[in-house]
Amino acid sequence: MANKVRIVLYDFSAEPGNNELSVREGETVTVTNQNIGGGWIEAQNSRGEVGLVPEDYLEVTTNSTAVEGMSLMTACVTPPPPGAEEDEWDDEWDDVKSSGYAESESGEGGAFQRGGAQGTAMKISLNKFPGFSKSGPELYLLAKQLVKGSQKLSIYMGEVGPVWSYPDNQLDCVVADPKKGSKMYGLKSYIEYQVTPNTTNRPVNHRYKHFDWLYERLLDKLGSAIPIPSLPDKQVTGRFEEEFIKMRMERLQGWMTRMCRHPVVSSSEVFQLFLTYKDEKDWKTGKRKAEKDETVGVMIFATIEPEAPDLDPIEVEQKCDQFSRFTKAMDDGVKEILTVGQEHWKRCTGPLPKEYQRIGKAFQNLSSVFNSSGYQGEATLTDAMTAAGKTYEEIALMVAEQPRKDLHFLMETNNEYKGLLGCFPDTLAVHKAGIEKVKEGDKLVATSKITPQEKVTMAKRVSTMSYTLQAEMNHFHSNRIYDYNRVMQLYLEEQAKFYETIAEKLRQAHAQFTTM
Amino acid sequence: MANKVRIVLYDFSAEPGNNELSVREGETVTVTNQNIGGGWIEAQNSRGEVGLVPEDYLEVTTNSTAVEGMSLMTACVTPPPPGAEEDEWDDEWDDVKSSGYAESESGEGGAFQRGGAQGTAMKISLNKFPGFSKSGPELYLLAKQLVKGSQKLSIYMGEVGPVWSYPDNQLDCVVADPKKGSKMYGLKSYIEYQVTPNTTNRPVNHRYKHFDWLYERLLDKLGSAIPIPSLPDKQVTGRFEEEFIKMRMERLQGWMTRMCRHPVVSSSEVFQLFLTYKDEKDWKTGKRKAEKDETVGVMIFATIEPEAPDLDPIEVEQKCDQFSRFTKAMDDGVKEILTVGQEHWKRCTGPLPKEYQRIGKAFQNLSSVFNSSGYQGEATLTDAMTAAGKTYEEIALMVAEQPRKDLHFLMETNNEYKGLLGCFPDTLAVHKAGIEKVKEGDKLVATSKITPQEKVTMAKRVSTMSYTLQAEMNHFHSNRIYDYNRVMQLYLEEQAKFYETIAEKLRQAHAQFTTM
Repeated sequence: MANKVRIVLYDFSAEPGNNELSVREGETVTVTNQNIGGGWIEAQNSRGEVGLVPEDYLEVTTNSTAVEGMSLMTACVTPPPPGAEEDEWDDEWDDVKSSGYAESESGEGGAFQRGGAQGTAMKISLNKFPGFSKSGPELYLLAKQLVKGSQKLSIYMGEVGPVWSYPDNQLDCVVADPKKGSKMYGLKSYIEYQVTPNTTNRPVNHRYKHFDWLYERLLDKLGSAIPIPSLPDKQVTGRFEEEFIKMRMERLQGWMTRMCRHPVVSSSEVFQLFLTYKDEKDWKTGKRKAEKDETVGVMIFATIEPEAPDLDPIEVEQKCDQFSRFTKAMDDGVKEILTVGQEHWKRCTGPLPKEYQRIGKAFQNLSSVFNSSGYQGEATLTDAMTAAGKTYEEIALMVAEQPRKDLHFLMETNNEYKGLLGCFPDTLAVHKAGIEKVKEGDKLVATSKITPQEKVTMAKRVSTMSYTLQAEMNHFHSNRIYDYNRVMQLYLEEQAKFYETIAEKLRQAHAQFTTM
Repeated sequence: MANKVRIVLYDFSAEPGNNELSVREGETVTVTNQNIGGGWIEAQNSRGEVGLVPEDYLEVTTNSTAVEGMSLMTACVTPPPPGAEEDEWDDEWDDVKSSGYAESESGEGGAFQRGGAQGTAMKISLNKFPGFSKSGPELYLLAKQLVKGSQKLSIYMGEVGPVWSYPDNQLDCVVADPKKGSKMYGLKSYIEYQVTPNTTNRPVNHRYKHFDWLYERLLDKLGSAIPIPSLPDKQVTGRFEEEFIKMRMERLQGWMTRMCRHPVVSSSEVFQLFLTYKDEKDWKTGKRKAEKDETVGVMIFATIEPEAPDLDPIEVEQKCDQFSRFTKAMDDGVKEILTVGQEHWKRCTGPLPKEYQRIGKAFQNLSSVFNSSGYQGEATLTDAMTAAGKTYEEIALMVAEQPRKDLHFLMETNNEYKGLLGCFPDTLAVHKAGIEKVKEGDKLVATSKITPQEKVTMAKRVSTMSYTLQAEMNHFHSNRIYDYNRVMQLYLEEQAKFYETIAEKLRQAHAQFTTM
């Protein structure tokens, strides 16, 4: 690697006894080992101290991570050439990085908590409506005319309260078969994923940047009413290109599944375009149309028709506060699981298997000493002890491998929910702003800022917003119950299997000893 | 506690992140918490730093450990009153200490490796023969007359080589029913153990100091030929008096069992006296007789008659070297197991259960957040998640308790062997000295230090020593095979059960979730 000196981006305090190195923002360190994995890098500071530092606490040095497998020319960060089609160059860069054999591991353990777009809040483009606090929800609340003949989104009263209208057949899709493509005479490469919806069963190809485009459209169009979780982190890295691609695909699949499950998202024109475009021309036409769509931001509420009586503003506020408390509490709970899970992951892949390995070695060493005794007839014992030692070495491997089989999914699900919950504060803020506006109603009428009729309309519309939020919360709850039921079952099932296998191995080792 | 300042006896380097305190020999520290357990004490150094230090790295301050439960008069170290019967006062002290509620834990974990008489070498009283290098084995090798009509110890050629003559019924005994006694008007208390041999089935009572007396006699009489392991450490401490007594009794039982199993030890007069004395008078008479026994030290070899042809001195030396190599290698192997086991113990009782507990808490917390959702019909999920959380809390307890059920016995056995192996260097040194003497034979004849006949006698007698060593090694090997077979089986059986129980608990937790 050419350049191993890196600038520290954030302060990091080493945990004692963990072979970590404390670093301070702005300090430079020299990378001494990039192949640590788990999101860690070994580095040396100016005082000569060596230890582990989280990879993403260090400046990304593109020329040091991407030099392998491509020429330096493309590896350097170059401004996009003027007029490059659809900012392709920039987008490309993300794909290219993936083929640069990024050093860190596939995101579990150390890499889970730090950064990651999945974990950060949804970026609702509120600034699209200049001066949000004045014209945010008001744009909808005080709009003269709502929607011109566009299709309406229904909200029904279900058993659990307001619910979206769900399709009879749930949309689903499979993200698979990542293929490497290249352009610019092979200098730039990218990965194309095959996305096959269950409706057409016909695969379409998409690159990461297309997913990103879809995300931006959904956010613009639906984000004020529906939390649209961020795409899997662009920075997800894998020790090997294959691992990286596998991890990104798994997370894109998770994101797409979640989007398919949402009745409003899945039936939206832009989402349908993404899944079922017929050819390049069809895609480009659809793209342009979607980008010109003006029913975005809070105007999404204008397309919603709750089939229920208007809510009292006080009830609206209560619902909003209740959801706010719940999502905050769940956010804390999810983060606790992630923290604990990360610690557990570290132990299961670090000190614990090393200890089982040492136990295994100690048994085998003693067995080979016994073998050298020259005493007759102890082969049964020494063979059995060697087998016991090997069993503990096998257990060591099992322990180290297990988190990928169970904890991984628990972490992924909670990570997804962390991302989703991170969107709620923004969604809820839109509602709160609406509620505040309605509260000001009398004053606004008194100062002739609005008419009494407009005040009535506002209350009616904020009721629609509340039904939307409730439908969304009910959608969230039902998905949450489904997801946690599934992931907890998977986790416990795999954990039980794991302990059963260990017990079985120990029984086999036990059977090799002679009974006395 | 009156006096909390202690002098550091040895250098100790703190393991980072373990809350330990580095100290240097000669430094003084102030004890800040004696109730840590596991062989640790919390102390503060002169720089104000506080951390854990191994208890036995600190000077023993008798007046600070024994003040509870007795008057200061007896608690102070007082020279024995002139003419105190059989040094009773001094001996008493050890027993008294046991009732002083010593602070540290029952010896596992931290206390295992450090110090402990069981781990130290046998102290053969070679200095009983003034100027050992001249008169050590020579006392026997050049003795004019060997034994006057005393009973001879036979060595036969068995399938595995020279073996002791074993009794038809193996002696065994049970150490049980510890009872507190007191004297000096209740100011001094001691513990009396009931020892019941399988031969008479009649219990006799003994205090620790009697075991110690027996040990000294066996060492004097047989120690040159037979490794006599030290008694369980006097310093074994228990957080509670009960724990201390239980631990000491367990180890006294282990020691007695080993002594019973040895044909020479178990048939010795002094050992028989210990197990079967009829009354106080019988005991005192036997005691005096044993203390006057003159067939001690190397003269034990004079009572041994191998029923096999004399060995060539070269073969004698080869055997000796072979055993030396083996015992050294086994000593290393045993110490490795002890080190690894101690680390594992620490993890199983420390960070690991804490982590399972945190996982359990995190599941339960998330479950109670879910409970607050206000969404209908998720009781099945939240109940199941709470149960899963509780399961992990149960697992935490199991993990922390498990070492006492399996690792404990593995550690105890290896600790016993560490003590036994520590005796071999001395036993082997006696043989080596004999071998050297024989090698000097020609020179000694040439300088008229010995007669040619004496040279022949020496070679014959060193052959007897070698047969003894071989019989002893074969005894050791057969016991070793038995002991390790047994302890490995116990360990693996308990480990398998442990993992099976965990798996079962996880299956039960899993079953609480609804299938989808």
